[in-house]
Amino acid sequence: MKRRIYLDHAATTPLDKRVLKEMEPFFSERLGNAGSLHSFGQEAREAVEKAREDIAKAINAGQEEIYFTSGGTESDNIALQGVMKANREKGKGLVTSAFEHHAVLHTAQHLEKKGFDVNFLPVTKEGFVELSEVEKALHKETVLVSIMHANNEIGTVQPVKEIGEMCRERGVLFHSDAVQTVGKEKIDVQKMGIDLLSASAHKFYGPKGVGFLYKRAGVKAEPIAFGGGHEKGLRSGTENTPGIVGMASALKLAVKEMAEDNARERKLRNKLIDGCLEIKDGWLNGAREPRLACNAALGFDFVEGESMVLMLSDKGIAASTGSACSTKSLEPSHVLRAIGLPHVKCHGSLRFTLGRNTSAKDIDYVLQELPKIVQRLRKISPLGGK
Amino acid sequence: MKRRIYLDHAATTPLDKRVLKEMEPFFSERLGNAGSLHSFGQEAREAVEKAREDIAKAINAGQEEIYFTSGGTESDNIALQGVMKANREKGKGLVTSAFEHHAVLHTAQHLEKKGFDVNFLPVTKEGFVELSEVEKALHKETVLVSIMHANNEIGTVQPVKEIGEMCRERGVLFHSDAVQTVGKEKIDVQKMGIDLLSASAHKFYGPKGVGFLYKRAGVKAEPIAFGGGHEKGLRSGTENTPGIVGMASALKLAVKEMAEDNARERKLRNKLIDGCLEIKDGWLNGAREPRLACNAALGFDFVEGESMVLMLSDKGIAASTGSACSTKSLEPSHVLRAIGLPHVKCHGSLRFTLGRNTSAKDIDYVLQELPKIVQRLRKISPLGGK
Repeated sequence: MKRRIYLDHAATTPLDKRVLKEMEPFFSERLGNAGSLHSFGQEAREAVEKAREDIAKAINAGQEEIYFTSGGTESDNIALQGVMKANREKGKGLVTSAFEHHAVLHTAQHLEKKGFDVNFLPVTKEGFVELSEVEKALHKETVLVSIMHANNEIGTVQPVKEIGEMCRERGVLFHSDAVQTVGKEKIDVQKMGIDLLSASAHKFYGPKGVGFLYKRAGVKAEPIAFGGGHEKGLRSGTENTPGIVGMASALKLAVKEMAEDNARERKLRNKLIDGCLEIKDGWLNGAREPRLACNAALGFDFVEGESMVLMLSDKGIAASTGSACSTKSLEPSHVLRAIGLPHVKCHGSLRFTLGRNTSAKDIDYVLQELPKIVQRLRKISPLGGK
Repeated sequence: MKRRIYLDHAATTPLDKRVLKEMEPFFSERLGNAGSLHSFGQEAREAVEKAREDIAKAINAGQEEIYFTSGGTESDNIALQGVMKANREKGKGLVTSAFEHHAVLHTAQHLEKKGFDVNFLPVTKEGFVELSEVEKALHKETVLVSIMHANNEIGTVQPVKEIGEMCRERGVLFHSDAVQTVGKEKIDVQKMGIDLLSASAHKFYGPKGVGFLYKRAGVKAEPIAFGGGHEKGLRSGTENTPGIVGMASALKLAVKEMAEDNARERKLRNKLIDGCLEIKDGWLNGAREPRLACNAALGFDFVEGESMVLMLSDKGIAASTGSACSTKSLEPSHVLRAIGLPHVKCHGSLRFTLGRNTSAKDIDYVLQELPKIVQRLRKISPLGGK
């Protein structure tokens, strides 16, 4: 069989086999609807609440502050739409950044169309939101600041604690899309001054189709969908018991193994970056640190990212140009544009994101194949670089 | 081990082991994000599109008319909120019934608060929406009619085809919440004149946390959440590949085995109803037919439904008073009130819903235990009936 190397862990991760084992009893045997009174239902309810407790502990929140959702997109939407609509009496101000994930960016744009006052902060060339920009943007009617914990394309880790402290001082709510960091970076919502936080299980070796929203007790938010009133009325729909159990199990494992995983991935990642930078006219997008241990967001002049991804795929290597959510778009990445990369350079981007099973051999193989691919593409490139 | 009999299949069903087998490769091995360009992503994309094709075939829709969601509640919300908001230029009229599932009812109430003109049709004592009531309610500004295919509490099957035809003649869109019927009753969206249809996989032996919305090509609808633009912009969020594959697999099995399953369940269900009606002051809620083959919605004077459910649970039997989504509510069921049941009788309701694994022995056991439970409860009842 052909060698296959998966280096797109920011798009999605494999379900950890240990996690699947925890989920299995809840598919068919412990099948109850957590809303049911009978013993099958009560077993499901206990499992759901135990998962809620475990997840709360992992981010230093209260159990009653965790709301189960279908994933990061829904969590982000409830946080932004829900909080802005529920706090109209305070004002219409929303502050976010220009390089958020589309689940935040497009929701903010939707709110702007609906009459909310949205401020999209610029970011630095290194890939960071600056505290001084947040401060400038805050005004009396600002309700919510939403800044991601780490960028999904370039992996730069934002000064979330400092932003959280500033928001707290000013009496402004703070949401962070932590889809890329939950299970990968330490998160303490108390110390970091976070009022709302979004997460998605399939980014930390949990199942697809489930996520959570942390919402600090007392923060007002409206639901975006209506129904049976599950999750204290914030998110209706039968609880996805196996998914929820799997998410909690995956998060516990990820937190436990975080230091070790990160140290190993950072070492391999640095080797990968250094090797790639030896290719002529190659560069790293964003500062090298603070950056997710798994992320190597590179660029190469005179080549198309899509072509590199497809040729790597032919060699059994899975990489991406950026977000999987924007694959079909012909527009250059809004993240790369936000960090000021010239239009033509945006098209030459290539993202590797390492994972638990990535080995030194995998990196060696990439460093053996990639230079040849870049060279071959440059030979046929209309962009130059021959 | 204690005998355990699950008779709450309207709340949720066990995942069919054959379905889990189909899902398994997509948890860890075939792990890609369906949005990714590389071979892992393309494998996921192919699986998702194959599932879409299979689901479309099962309801006689086009593949491009199936949208994956997190379940019935989300599908209902996109159908109602999405269509009403996208068709404002036509009017503000929404027609629904008084005994819809809360995912439709509460969404309609929300839309009413937002200024839409919502008509909640009465239903008959037998548990049906009358065509003449639909006709009376339609007016020039009616955009959408939303009537469930079968009621989730009492199981009565609505004249959806006739309503669909009437809507089509009048140029009004027709949505049906078919969460209780997909995989259990024949559905042909063409013949039935259905423009939008909601379904949830865990009601037909598929996984929890995944559902679909059928939306006829050309029907305008806005998303309720924003993000990466998945599902042609109607429902953003990474595709839940194992869930989607499982849903399609479960639906194919359910359709294939429908006639046989229904015949067996209807026979057992009738035995159960007849046995229960031998208990003094017991009754059936809603007409016996047309009713879902699995459903026995009963009532007993002078007893509390919750007490019956708990005592049955002690005997290893899982039943419910009505919808699992309203378990915690002290309000009598809106469905039972809609069919004109007196307040005091609503509290004495008991729903059994049979499934694939229900046996004649299970029914015998229920008919052995239930009369004793009713008798015991009546002895201590403040409601009388001693």
